[in-house]
Amino acid sequence: MFDLSLTEAQSDAEVSALLQTLCETWHNTIPASKFMQITPVLFNGDSLQVTAPIDPNINLHHTMFAGSIYTLMTLTGWGMVWLQQQLSQAHGDIVLADAKVRYLKPVTKQPYAKVIWPYTDLTPLTRGQLVKITLEVALYCDEIMCATFTGQFVSFPQKIVSSE
Amino acid sequence: MFDLSLTEAQSDAEVSALLQTLCETWHNTIPASKFMQITPVLFNGDSLQVTAPIDPNINLHHTMFAGSIYTLMTLTGWGMVWLQQQLSQAHGDIVLADAKVRYLKPVTKQPYAKVIWPYTDLTPLTRGQLVKITLEVALYCDEIMCATFTGQFVSFPQKIVSSE
Repeated sequence: MFDLSLTEAQSDAEVSALLQTLCETWHNTIPASKFMQITPVLFNGDSLQVTAPIDPNINLHHTMFAGSIYTLMTLTGWGMVWLQQQLSQAHGDIVLADAKVRYLKPVTKQPYAKVIWPYTDLTPLTRGQLVKITLEVALYCDEIMCATFTGQFVSFPQKIVSSE
Repeated sequence: MFDLSLTEAQSDAEVSALLQTLCETWHNTIPASKFMQITPVLFNGDSLQVTAPIDPNINLHHTMFAGSIYTLMTLTGWGMVWLQQQLSQAHGDIVLADAKVRYLKPVTKQPYAKVIWPYTDLTPLTRGQLVKITLEVALYCDEIMCATFTGQFVSFPQKIVSSE
């Protein structure tokens, strides 16, 4: 649990702690994310970057596997919602409802997935209401965009989910 | 390399050999598919079923991870194109161009992804032309549909891809 405002979160140490907790949450609860070595690397309050090496994510064309690219982009979106919930102290259980992905170019080097927070209001969670968030994630290899992802995430107030 | 007509492929031994080769192709060239234990189980010439156990694919909600569900459905589609190429002796390098996925229900038990072949003509591959194939994959948990996937696959004639 973090008690941070957006401004305070921008200090390096606090951002590092948040990203470390996010990474541990993934790797401890989603074995596939650990296998793929998916790792958050940069967060400034508004944007998040997440990466993964090519080796565990290779395919038979010796480029990054489509399933790994999608997983990296999905967790980038999920991670952004999780981080914003930590900052706003509005907690919910985050799931992906639907997504569209386009593969534009083969990924031949370690890519970075980037997402910008669209300033969705999360306070309904504190009143027991779910929140829907549409996020656009882009995947870059060097400076070239290689894939795009649009996902609708839903965050359920935790009491409602635990009673289902 | 298989030299089979659709009818001949329906004999159990030949189908088993095809599915074994497909599974080995995945596990030997896509480490994530081996980690997820993605395994083709049934093929009758028209439809393919592929499964994966929950354990390596769990998420923090104790259901199947969205990235694993997507990967299972992607490989189900890819596998169908690969199988049809084996049957028709029209070979190409298969990639996923884009996809849409909808998560309808949490996956709490081992699921099966199913796809039906839409009888796309693969013979342009033998004339050096690419083929686009749109596939609909559905994921079932018991008899309940839990996710849907629509993907556009492209198969490139192998000479063109190897010269890129």
